[in-house]
Amino acid sequence: MTSGTWAKPYSYSFMKPLVFPFNIKLAEPSSSDKRADKERLIEEISTRLNTSLPIDLCLKTLRKLPVFLRENNFSAFAVISHTDKNIRILDVRNDDRIYAVVIDIGTTNLAASLYNMKTCEKICSLEHENPQITLGLDVLTRVHLAMTGKADELHKLLIDGINSIIKKLCESSGVAYSDIYAGVIAGNTIMSHFFANLSVSNIPIEPYIPTCHKFGFLKASELGINIHPESLIYIYPNAGSYVGGDIISGILSSGIYKDELPSLLIDVGTNAEIVLGCKDWMLVGAGAAGPALESGISEIGMRAIDGAIYSVSIEKDCEVKIKTIGNKEPIGVCGSGMIELISEMYQAGIINRQGKFQKKCPSIVEQNGNRGFLIYNSGSKTLIIYDHDIENFLRSKAAMFTFLYVLTRSVGMRFKDIHRVYISGAFGGGINAEKAVRIGMIPAIDKGKIIALGNSSLKGTEMLLRNSDLLTDIDSICKLITYKEMNTESEFMKEFPGALFIPHTNPEVLKA
Amino acid sequence: MTSGTWAKPYSYSFMKPLVFPFNIKLAEPSSSDKRADKERLIEEISTRLNTSLPIDLCLKTLRKLPVFLRENNFSAFAVISHTDKNIRILDVRNDDRIYAVVIDIGTTNLAASLYNMKTCEKICSLEHENPQITLGLDVLTRVHLAMTGKADELHKLLIDGINSIIKKLCESSGVAYSDIYAGVIAGNTIMSHFFANLSVSNIPIEPYIPTCHKFGFLKASELGINIHPESLIYIYPNAGSYVGGDIISGILSSGIYKDELPSLLIDVGTNAEIVLGCKDWMLVGAGAAGPALESGISEIGMRAIDGAIYSVSIEKDCEVKIKTIGNKEPIGVCGSGMIELISEMYQAGIINRQGKFQKKCPSIVEQNGNRGFLIYNSGSKTLIIYDHDIENFLRSKAAMFTFLYVLTRSVGMRFKDIHRVYISGAFGGGINAEKAVRIGMIPAIDKGKIIALGNSSLKGTEMLLRNSDLLTDIDSICKLITYKEMNTESEFMKEFPGALFIPHTNPEVLKA
Repeated sequence: MTSGTWAKPYSYSFMKPLVFPFNIKLAEPSSSDKRADKERLIEEISTRLNTSLPIDLCLKTLRKLPVFLRENNFSAFAVISHTDKNIRILDVRNDDRIYAVVIDIGTTNLAASLYNMKTCEKICSLEHENPQITLGLDVLTRVHLAMTGKADELHKLLIDGINSIIKKLCESSGVAYSDIYAGVIAGNTIMSHFFANLSVSNIPIEPYIPTCHKFGFLKASELGINIHPESLIYIYPNAGSYVGGDIISGILSSGIYKDELPSLLIDVGTNAEIVLGCKDWMLVGAGAAGPALESGISEIGMRAIDGAIYSVSIEKDCEVKIKTIGNKEPIGVCGSGMIELISEMYQAGIINRQGKFQKKCPSIVEQNGNRGFLIYNSGSKTLIIYDHDIENFLRSKAAMFTFLYVLTRSVGMRFKDIHRVYISGAFGGGINAEKAVRIGMIPAIDKGKIIALGNSSLKGTEMLLRNSDLLTDIDSICKLITYKEMNTESEFMKEFPGALFIPHTNPEVLKA
Repeated sequence: MTSGTWAKPYSYSFMKPLVFPFNIKLAEPSSSDKRADKERLIEEISTRLNTSLPIDLCLKTLRKLPVFLRENNFSAFAVISHTDKNIRILDVRNDDRIYAVVIDIGTTNLAASLYNMKTCEKICSLEHENPQITLGLDVLTRVHLAMTGKADELHKLLIDGINSIIKKLCESSGVAYSDIYAGVIAGNTIMSHFFANLSVSNIPIEPYIPTCHKFGFLKASELGINIHPESLIYIYPNAGSYVGGDIISGILSSGIYKDELPSLLIDVGTNAEIVLGCKDWMLVGAGAAGPALESGISEIGMRAIDGAIYSVSIEKDCEVKIKTIGNKEPIGVCGSGMIELISEMYQAGIINRQGKFQKKCPSIVEQNGNRGFLIYNSGSKTLIIYDHDIENFLRSKAAMFTFLYVLTRSVGMRFKDIHRVYISGAFGGGINAEKAVRIGMIPAIDKGKIIALGNSSLKGTEMLLRNSDLLTDIDSICKLITYKEMNTESEFMKEFPGALFIPHTNPEVLKA
């Protein structure tokens, strides 16, 4: 068998991407080598990849193979797809334009990136509202709708939303949708079920049973996703109804499942999810954290996109200085901006430890009986944070801190024993750790131990795209996990009220 | 985990059918057992089957699983499908009505059987003309048509023909097409390629390369076969352009690949295919045997169905006694009848050793300058065998004998060393070995060593249906095979002329 050229970017010993172009040159058939086209291709790939995994070839590609090989002198770029069980040849091409897409399905937002699989480099990213929001803001509303006849509609809204984000990624990069040969999806258990159009009916009812933990690889055409129809789409598995694929993906990207010493991973959306663990064990706690930390809920809350206030400082005389993403006119406050805003308002004495307005200052306004603080006013645009927004935020930060406290104590640990704190989620990208500590949202841990991950779920999907060996790691993570329901813990009930204060009724608790 | 009842017919240690209903009773979910529905099902099946093969579940079944399980108190018949690499759950049902279909795709005829997979018993069988015949009688004509734009049409004709035979099987047995969950197909290399709509363009051209050796399992819906859309259809592999899946299937059903001592397998259609071998080696010779042994070609030739003459004796004064299948009025002569007819005409002195009419007898007629022998005449129906029919037949029998002679000699063996002779094909069912020997079609081997198999290719598909472990045997057979082109052998050219005589110019050769 003639060996083909070995192009650098596909060096197999280096990385095993989930999908990649593999440059091959086959020995031509002769009277002493009468192997069929399919077996000729598969044996060459098996030898070159030095793999014992079974290799198969999709029927459509087999149908075009004979003409293709002879027109191209038995040279080709084979589109190689890895699953956990086998290798699948999705296509043969005479170029190496192979792309892949990853999507984090949030309850509120979809985040996606397009990758060039020749180089394993990101081309572009986009965020987009989850179109299911038109039917219901929160997960439970949607589950209820699904249980009363709207499951197909919810599925379709989500698929349409994803197809629309893929279309935009393709348009902005000039990539053809048919050149996208793989997808990786992560979302909470409900979103993953909606994506695959699986029943969520038993998830909200004792004993909270999902239809499926491991979705594995599904065909794009079977899911209605507009990429190459033979593409396989991997959906991150869940470890139960309340430990979704987004958490598994986040754990993967944080790397805490390989650490010797226990670390914390904090992921905040509408729900707060906290992971505490290391290579030997992993505890996941989840519970409702309140909506204040996610965009689309509070009136001034928004995603971390252009025009979002991400940094706030309040100087004497209540003068507010803000920074916005893209240096654009402010249109709202993202998660990290909200933490800074509350922290600064407290520092400046505008609100007291309970979050109530206490100081007379010209920026405090009153509208329809609600008191608020004027953050920005340009005449045409006015941004005000109201007392009920602050209350919501404090409930969220209290829930978050209490989760951290209860989970850490539940394994007999203290905050000072924590190796690292990884922060992910809506506000994860640019969190000012000092200010988060100041309001008592996260424990008073060394600043150097706090690592902001951004969208850890999306990061995990990207890592898997670049390295299919991580499928094994995902399996291991699922096996390590023990789930702990937080809100119903009596310990939670006991600790929560104190945490509603800024920073806490007993600030010593933050350091303990 | 609660163990379900173990119904006798599915006793897994006994047999592993390709598809079968598996009766399961799952442990119901509880606060101490929160496994998802999918994993609950798969783990139960994995434990009960005591298998380490990966098990998966098709998406459509996963979608209906939660409601199905709860409506049926977590009891179900899972439709289990075995492939060589994994186990696939095709469906869950509340009954065990699971069927399967096997089809032998001949160039001239399609033969099919319907099986009840609850009991692994045959329900009914049917034969049907291969509808491709409307485009071309022989394989080469069809290959040429495929190469000049008619490949899709040939594929469609074949699929339509198979769907029509499946429809008839269902109608005559009252089985619903959607209860058929597996298919096994065997055919020569060209027919198998037509079935999967794969290019045959390189098969007739040096060095004779098929598109594919191992087709494996393909989805019924992808092939357009009207059975349950999730069903997997196994296509027997070929061992090259001239050693088709029908031969592999025939070898499987004969069992010669397990024999210590070398045996012969003779399969006669338009092509003669001969296998000589045992558990250590296997030689396959193939070549054009002429059309005389297959129905649909010679004017009086026909399939072994009702009305076919299968036995002939000629008494003094040229009185012809015939027996027909079903004891119906004769409409033609099947393969075994043809052998008897020639043998009897020779025995009675009507034809000489060269097959020429030599005796004056009232049954010899002349029409348009052709001489013929009147086999049957009822006024409305007349059956005559003409001199050119006899000539064609003698060419076929000469080719057949010469193949046997050359192949046996090529490995330094003699006829007396042959352990057994298995006869399969159009005339395989009811061959009169004595008369076949008398005309020199097969060597003068002990009558007790000759075993008629009928349609060995169809038998092989049925065996696989009942026992998926035979997939390993099929792999082994493919590896054992060496192909030997017969017609171009100089040895063939040398021996052929002598074999055109009845029984041979040198009758000693038949015994040697």
